[in-house]
Amino acid sequence: MRALIEELAQAVGSSHVLTDPSTRAPFETDWTRRWSAPALAVVRPADCDQVAAVLRACSRHGIGVVPQGGNTGLVGGSTPRAGVDQVVLSLTRLTEVGPVDLAASSVSVGAGVTLARLQAIAHEAGLDAGLDLGARDSATIAGLAACDAGGLRAIRYGTARTRVAGLRAVLSDGRIIDRRAGLLKDNAGYDLPALLIGSEGTLAVITDVVWRLVPRLDARALALIPVDGFDAAVALVAGVRPVLPSLELCELMTDAGVALTADHLAMSRPVDPAPAYVLLECAATTDPLEELAEALHAAGVGDRAVVATDAASHARLLRLREAHTEAIAAAGVAHKIDVGVPLRGLAAFADQATAIVRDAAPEAQLILFGHLGDGNLHVNILGLHDEADRVEHEILALAIQAGGTISAEHGIGVQKAEHLPLLRGPDELRTMADIKAALDPPGILNPGVLLAR
Amino acid sequence: MRALIEELAQAVGSSHVLTDPSTRAPFETDWTRRWSAPALAVVRPADCDQVAAVLRACSRHGIGVVPQGGNTGLVGGSTPRAGVDQVVLSLTRLTEVGPVDLAASSVSVGAGVTLARLQAIAHEAGLDAGLDLGARDSATIAGLAACDAGGLRAIRYGTARTRVAGLRAVLSDGRIIDRRAGLLKDNAGYDLPALLIGSEGTLAVITDVVWRLVPRLDARALALIPVDGFDAAVALVAGVRPVLPSLELCELMTDAGVALTADHLAMSRPVDPAPAYVLLECAATTDPLEELAEALHAAGVGDRAVVATDAASHARLLRLREAHTEAIAAAGVAHKIDVGVPLRGLAAFADQATAIVRDAAPEAQLILFGHLGDGNLHVNILGLHDEADRVEHEILALAIQAGGTISAEHGIGVQKAEHLPLLRGPDELRTMADIKAALDPPGILNPGVLLAR
Repeated sequence: MRALIEELAQAVGSSHVLTDPSTRAPFETDWTRRWSAPALAVVRPADCDQVAAVLRACSRHGIGVVPQGGNTGLVGGSTPRAGVDQVVLSLTRLTEVGPVDLAASSVSVGAGVTLARLQAIAHEAGLDAGLDLGARDSATIAGLAACDAGGLRAIRYGTARTRVAGLRAVLSDGRIIDRRAGLLKDNAGYDLPALLIGSEGTLAVITDVVWRLVPRLDARALALIPVDGFDAAVALVAGVRPVLPSLELCELMTDAGVALTADHLAMSRPVDPAPAYVLLECAATTDPLEELAEALHAAGVGDRAVVATDAASHARLLRLREAHTEAIAAAGVAHKIDVGVPLRGLAAFADQATAIVRDAAPEAQLILFGHLGDGNLHVNILGLHDEADRVEHEILALAIQAGGTISAEHGIGVQKAEHLPLLRGPDELRTMADIKAALDPPGILNPGVLLAR
Repeated sequence: MRALIEELAQAVGSSHVLTDPSTRAPFETDWTRRWSAPALAVVRPADCDQVAAVLRACSRHGIGVVPQGGNTGLVGGSTPRAGVDQVVLSLTRLTEVGPVDLAASSVSVGAGVTLARLQAIAHEAGLDAGLDLGARDSATIAGLAACDAGGLRAIRYGTARTRVAGLRAVLSDGRIIDRRAGLLKDNAGYDLPALLIGSEGTLAVITDVVWRLVPRLDARALALIPVDGFDAAVALVAGVRPVLPSLELCELMTDAGVALTADHLAMSRPVDPAPAYVLLECAATTDPLEELAEALHAAGVGDRAVVATDAASHARLLRLREAHTEAIAAAGVAHKIDVGVPLRGLAAFADQATAIVRDAAPEAQLILFGHLGDGNLHVNILGLHDEADRVEHEILALAIQAGGTISAEHGIGVQKAEHLPLLRGPDELRTMADIKAALDPPGILNPGVLLAR
């Protein structure tokens, strides 16, 4: 291994090859502390050419490479695996930022730029990143692209896939795919960036991203609507979505989650108890409150909707949803499952998931919340013990049965690599394996992630 | 070949295997009459399983398959090639349409459904397809997806890529990729649909598409702004785009095109002569005229903008742009080149393209127009003769030099397959060839298209 370490030092400078266990440690364990294993080294290149040099060296030596951005993932996709010879390729030093192109509405940024920094850059230019999620201060742009991150605003602006106008990436043999023209229309040949987005670092290492920005809309209106259940929540979406082009947030909560979170925040409940709640936010150039109120009225829920009347109540209602994660974390160690379900089957899915948890662990507490407009449900279970794996397996199988997906936005990583064949079947899985073999013949990129070995 | 024809007849019924030259003819020549060659047969399956059976038969016999939708392409991608043993696989019988899902804002349609029919279905549900182009009455949904079609509204709603929520497709060996869940968020494994979109039928045959719909917006405002040149046009886009989320059309014309088209339509010119014109349209739930006017005023062009004052003048200004294609066709045989150029380099590109045409053919007439917001320029040249190929080559090279693309929305097809290596270079080209070999090992799908043989 000494030869490899020397080559890596030559490629990036010896101070950027971390071999000491204490300096490596922050890169070897994820933030949930669920995933952890030692790496031979942590390598921190400064630019695309250095990334290519690192990959060429690792290819020559047959050593696995684990690309890492902000290390905010939830499925073990950016930390080393036990029993594999590998280095962590940290991309946080690639922080170059190009000028904001107002005409094209885009900006080119290095892999390691955080979402929060991108958002700040966009805001200064009168624009917005069009994507937001809780890990914004650490999550990096290339990580968001590699995992096709979703978040809170996907109903209007799509996932990372929709926001990426171009990228540059390095294949495992050091070849560079340069698609940074950033054109909205460019159908000259296979869309290699589209294939790399969501491939979780298993096909190439993304070094630069051209990000598509959206107008910054500061006029916002928010309403919290108690509904009789998930079917009513879906019906509400069906009613308002076609008439509200300004809709950019469409979230689902249950009474269990609202009660827990209100308690956690020491907030008085802003709404009477109900089986479920829908939170809608519109954003426009001028105050969209009237059009939101009209849409709610037409959908027959105008009377019961709690509408934010000022910035403070707006922030408070938004916080009630956003603080679900921390309220659940404060209550105990939660088992988190991220599924997507077609909206027509959402209510049945929720009923059956509730039954699975009740039967397996009567004492456990199930909290469902998520991005209703996307069919993206976060299944959180407190108080699971030995039966956790079985419950997770059953709930993933249920999502597949419902025509949904076992990963809406968290990704497959190591956690669900064994489950992927249940969803995709042998034909698709073979196609994925063929693509992996075509782009990364030695199989050094993020081994064990996405496709089980 | 008799054995193949029999197998095909068994797969789809003998009345749907056209072998007679006169019945085959409409499928063997494209509508521009530029591309034409005989096929062994035209096969017209009724559903996905029949498509799979056809592909398995052709795989066994090593016969090329040319997938064809509405046959509205411009680059020879959906008609047979001379000197190749091939069948045309016509998908126009796959016309099943599912119910419109209002909550998910999507609808599942068969490959052969036309864009116009999809638009009508969406309109009835109070929604819109979010994509429009001139060939709407013939172009099919799977063709739009396979070619990543763009059109007039991409600045707001993206290209076909953004509108496809899911699809089903058949690989050359008959394996079926089924990704019809239609979820906005689904990052479980490689996004095979994203790879197939824009692959021009060379990797798989798309049989079904789940299409993402958008709210139907009937309140529209339109303005035609004369500007001093392409730099001023780009500056205008940079000024209005960040403040106009309702902007959905942003087109560019020149005086030559406006004069020719106004003549052709026997329309009095709605605006004083200027080097270039920008056409902007906004659409919203309530009349967006005021916000458009404000944006134009802030951009310093409020005084000179011609604003549509009623439905008739709105339609007339829109027609001035849309009729460019037919006005040019009426004036002679035009050489059409479809490029994309980063907006910052658009003016220089136009100057240099003008010089290329002037030097090569002083008598020729160059008409530039296109989708300004997308950097998509349609280069039309009337009066080119022997020098046509050289001029085309030089203009494509110029687009590459400017950091642009040799195909914004028309695709590569047969026409530009020889040019693709100039744009993508050997590393990317090898990656594309590796992907082609992985998904279609016998190479029977659309041979000679996209990747030159």
